[in-house]
Amino acid sequence: MVGASEKPGKVGTVVLENIVRCGYAGKVFPVNPSHEKIMGLACYPSVSALPQTPDLAVIIVPASAVQAVVEECGERGVKAVAIISAGFKESGREGYRREAELKRVARSYGMRVLGPNCLGLADTSTPLNATFATRAPQPGKVAFMSQSGALCTAVLGWSEENHLGFSRFISLGNKMDLDESDMLEDLENDGNTAVIAAYLEGISDGGRFLEIASRVSRSKPVVIFKAGVTQAGAKAVSSHTGTLAGSENAYAAAFRRCGVLRAGTVEELFALARGFTSQPCPRGARVAVVTNAGGPGIIASDALERSGLSLAGLEEETARRLREGLPEAASVYNPVDVLGDAGEDRYRLAVESVLADPGVDALLVILTPQAMTRPAETAEAVARCARGCEKTVLAVFMGGEEVQEAERILREAGIPNYRFPEGAVETLRRMREYSEYLSRRSEAVVHFEVDRGKAMEVFESVRRQGRNELIEVEAREVLAAYGLPVARTALATNLEECIRAAREMGYPVVVKIASPQILHKTDVGGVVVGINNTDDLVSAYERVTNNARKFFPRADIWGVLVQEMLPPSHELILGMSRDAQFGPLLMVGLGGIYVEVLKDVSFRLAPVSEREAGEMLRELKSYWLLRGARGEVAADIEAAEECILRVSQLVTDFEDLAELDINPLRVLENGKGCLAADARIVLKE
Amino acid sequence: MVGASEKPGKVGTVVLENIVRCGYAGKVFPVNPSHEKIMGLACYPSVSALPQTPDLAVIIVPASAVQAVVEECGERGVKAVAIISAGFKESGREGYRREAELKRVARSYGMRVLGPNCLGLADTSTPLNATFATRAPQPGKVAFMSQSGALCTAVLGWSEENHLGFSRFISLGNKMDLDESDMLEDLENDGNTAVIAAYLEGISDGGRFLEIASRVSRSKPVVIFKAGVTQAGAKAVSSHTGTLAGSENAYAAAFRRCGVLRAGTVEELFALARGFTSQPCPRGARVAVVTNAGGPGIIASDALERSGLSLAGLEEETARRLREGLPEAASVYNPVDVLGDAGEDRYRLAVESVLADPGVDALLVILTPQAMTRPAETAEAVARCARGCEKTVLAVFMGGEEVQEAERILREAGIPNYRFPEGAVETLRRMREYSEYLSRRSEAVVHFEVDRGKAMEVFESVRRQGRNELIEVEAREVLAAYGLPVARTALATNLEECIRAAREMGYPVVVKIASPQILHKTDVGGVVVGINNTDDLVSAYERVTNNARKFFPRADIWGVLVQEMLPPSHELILGMSRDAQFGPLLMVGLGGIYVEVLKDVSFRLAPVSEREAGEMLRELKSYWLLRGARGEVAADIEAAEECILRVSQLVTDFEDLAELDINPLRVLENGKGCLAADARIVLKE
Repeated sequence: MVGASEKPGKVGTVVLENIVRCGYAGKVFPVNPSHEKIMGLACYPSVSALPQTPDLAVIIVPASAVQAVVEECGERGVKAVAIISAGFKESGREGYRREAELKRVARSYGMRVLGPNCLGLADTSTPLNATFATRAPQPGKVAFMSQSGALCTAVLGWSEENHLGFSRFISLGNKMDLDESDMLEDLENDGNTAVIAAYLEGISDGGRFLEIASRVSRSKPVVIFKAGVTQAGAKAVSSHTGTLAGSENAYAAAFRRCGVLRAGTVEELFALARGFTSQPCPRGARVAVVTNAGGPGIIASDALERSGLSLAGLEEETARRLREGLPEAASVYNPVDVLGDAGEDRYRLAVESVLADPGVDALLVILTPQAMTRPAETAEAVARCARGCEKTVLAVFMGGEEVQEAERILREAGIPNYRFPEGAVETLRRMREYSEYLSRRSEAVVHFEVDRGKAMEVFESVRRQGRNELIEVEAREVLAAYGLPVARTALATNLEECIRAAREMGYPVVVKIASPQILHKTDVGGVVVGINNTDDLVSAYERVTNNARKFFPRADIWGVLVQEMLPPSHELILGMSRDAQFGPLLMVGLGGIYVEVLKDVSFRLAPVSEREAGEMLRELKSYWLLRGARGEVAADIEAAEECILRVSQLVTDFEDLAELDINPLRVLENGKGCLAADARIVLKE
Repeated sequence: MVGASEKPGKVGTVVLENIVRCGYAGKVFPVNPSHEKIMGLACYPSVSALPQTPDLAVIIVPASAVQAVVEECGERGVKAVAIISAGFKESGREGYRREAELKRVARSYGMRVLGPNCLGLADTSTPLNATFATRAPQPGKVAFMSQSGALCTAVLGWSEENHLGFSRFISLGNKMDLDESDMLEDLENDGNTAVIAAYLEGISDGGRFLEIASRVSRSKPVVIFKAGVTQAGAKAVSSHTGTLAGSENAYAAAFRRCGVLRAGTVEELFALARGFTSQPCPRGARVAVVTNAGGPGIIASDALERSGLSLAGLEEETARRLREGLPEAASVYNPVDVLGDAGEDRYRLAVESVLADPGVDALLVILTPQAMTRPAETAEAVARCARGCEKTVLAVFMGGEEVQEAERILREAGIPNYRFPEGAVETLRRMREYSEYLSRRSEAVVHFEVDRGKAMEVFESVRRQGRNELIEVEAREVLAAYGLPVARTALATNLEECIRAAREMGYPVVVKIASPQILHKTDVGGVVVGINNTDDLVSAYERVTNNARKFFPRADIWGVLVQEMLPPSHELILGMSRDAQFGPLLMVGLGGIYVEVLKDVSFRLAPVSEREAGEMLRELKSYWLLRGARGEVAADIEAAEECILRVSQLVTDFEDLAELDINPLRVLENGKGCLAADARIVLKE
């Protein structure tokens, strides 16, 4: 404890007090040159003067003195340091510089550092409480880490009131060295931790996070509340995909990819943590409700329907048991209403019968305190029925003081109680989401035979010419190399070539200007569609070349592209924008207004699996159009999925590829495939 | 108190105890033939034996005995009765019959009845607690009524813990006589009630509710949690509008119409009630945040952006005051960060400065308990600054026990505290919604000169023919009578008439089969569009008549409709479906897939104001298409609005009109108006 103190209220005092009070069993060495003893412990003038090398150094000296202390720790062989002191990256340019220097020093000693600028850390099983919070975390199974120290203190107070216990409690501070991924990695095998909850404002290393979180989330649930969601991305982008992507969609795709559950509020974060630590996840979506009142039963049913879970249909045998054991006025169908005057016996019968029903995956037990209600006895009965049961049981014992004792009984039996039905249903929905994630096998990514060398060649040639944007012909070559069907196209450098090309591919055709400087061809009148004969072709040729010269007098005009005119079809936009944190983010949407006005798009991180490619399409609100709604022709969805997979492979193979738009990707009638009609590819600057 | 008892645990005992204990100042007469005294009060054998006529009779006798008691009350001249007893409509056929009979008897005496099957009622200012709840409502400014008695008891317990007080607490029970509208009417002028909160499963009389709630919500906020939202409507409907409408949309439109705020959960109901009872509503959307920690500041900013409120831009003068008074590291821009070591002085300075800023409408004060934080003193400072201020001030003092004292101080100063920023922001958003509602003047409905008599004639002729569905020609006549522009159309009963009609209106034309039995013409090949000459017309005529005979061999074929072919345009669907509760529900959406696949529609109750007609269109996600997004032609939105208003007038004038669909309503280029291309009108059976 470097910077230990005994002056009341000082951070150095509070931390030392917390370490001593929490019952830490190891040796504690306060370091402070102006004391000989602090709180009855021998105090040392410096780290080098310590009688042995500590496992952990906690540093709380002024920012300007931190580096010297870290160096001393390094010399002494200390491998782990928690720097509570503030005055680093968070406090302007000087602090920024100071932190960079500190990082270099710590690295040079192979030292791992928590913070700086943090509240410290606690571990309730060691036990060790090296925080300067005035309240200690209670023991429990939730590991919590937070990028905001202030939120830590707020959560400690709140969790005490709400009887939530922690295995670890970690304030990440500036994440100079140790970050969320390190913590996840460490918590994966911590036997005291059943669920990992985090408040994050950003992620330090996207690639590493994806890898570690994917692994960890398979052994225990990871729930993250990510703040700063609405901040606009700073990067300027030119593609459609890039404009729509934004860091928010990248985070959503990343969390989904690695099975991280996202909480929308801090309260939801802990409501989920409470569910996960105490109950098994539901194996299915069929929920039974047992209640002693109609109103809350209706509220629960509404919430279930909204959440995508379903009210279980009870088997005839269950209904029979209920009919025999409950009064005539009771409802023996789901929600099971045991009536307002129900004592614990009726609850026991109902809960037992319903849990025995093979068509039930989870149970909500609702109780409102009425005249004959015995909340505590009922809680005991429910706890007994739920013991050892593999189905999820959540309680909604409503009211205040009159259900407190019941709530305690339920808590001790591992049944979380919610004050209103909606909270319980929301928790159930997310637990189901997690169990669905777990039930998916890890998915191999399909690998197509492609001509990677050809694509590489095109990129290199573009680079050699000092460009980073491909023209359409080049983009097509790349797509073709990756097996993406492209519309038949020829580059014609003069009118004769143009006429010959059209004749060879057969009318009708489309012509488009071909120039490395003209990327948005339609905007300058550089495209003419529906050309049916040579006369029209000649005038179209003149029109697009004239327009190009008029609007871009200095452009290199390579000629025109002649392209086969495609049959009517659905149009998709399929694109990729490379997120700075998480890499290639694929986007798909129905072309035109669906993407641009309705923003009906879906995102996944590449590489995607077959399931994900299908999911991307099915997630679209306009998906039904592809399926042939409203008398439209059903599109070749399978072919569209293959295109997504091939693009996924392309953008994964070339990290150099910054943005890609296939717009439109024509999806023909079912069985007839797809054709990329236009494409843009931009390499990194 | 008919059915008073002294046997512990009996409902008759609990109610009497509650009346006596609550300090009711009037006389209490227990009625029970088998006692002479109960709880020290003289007990009477019957209502007729009472020494004077009571103001209120509370009845808790078995269901079968209730009617006799009510009759006795009627004879005695009792005008108000609360029937707690169950065993009526809620309990099957016999109970249903019993309630109908009881209703007749009560009516015959001009008596008003609460219940039956309820928890009773309480009024904390009289005071009177005539409920059988074991907990009494604490005094406060929220009037609460509930259709679920069990929810009442749950709310009582919960509200005690959450320090929420009530002016009235009313269990509505079966609403045999007194319902939500009666209560609203009564609470309108109750000086002790600042906000009315309700849990409802249904509304007894939609028209009356609309009238009363509209009036009451102008003098105090009405917040309703309506359960049973996902129940499918039972009525079979045939129109597009009817299919999409459903009772859920009708409720939403009704609540919006009368300024009722809808709560999504019980917790939200009371979070809103808490905001309304203690703080003025914000006059604008600009919110300032003062915080001692970055993380919660970010959470608040995210929530504000999502909610449609905005972070206020502070004036230079405010920033100057903050810069002068706060440490250098503090942020003087919104969110104002007074830093982790802020005491009450910094909060005072920040809160004062920000509240004085004319660009600020509301303030969130966030506090997390850190080392130097003084929650109670800070609460006092905030309370002092907020006193008499016309801006909305909400607190987010986070944590548990360490902020309890502060929370009490804030509560007493009328500043509600939320444990996390999201709750405060959501409350603020809804308070703003209410203040916007209040700021709108009451809107006159435009009245167009129309030929009502002509429409009436058509309806009568249809009725005379024993039909209730109009054929297209008839529907057009009705629309035309109401000034709705209809595409030029002629009914041709043979091929010659058909050819003449086409020649007169000029090619291209459309032909459609005309038969009272064939309403979905496209489905049976009864429509041909884009007919350019007589040859095509002849074959089209044959095709549609043959198809009609093939699919509807017994249909009356009146001939074909010849219609001018309209220029390319946007297509709206404009319809009405008559809700059983709330009357004519208008719907508008963009035609085709926007309505049917994307369900992009908006609803309002007719009659609508000009503002509402505009709002209906602007609410559509596809609205931007009408505005001319993606290079499409801008539509004549003003003309479309006028169509909505004219349809609104039509469906308001004729209560007999059950369903109406104009599909499509062609909206031409800006300045060129609209044309109804096809219409269906169905009268009530």
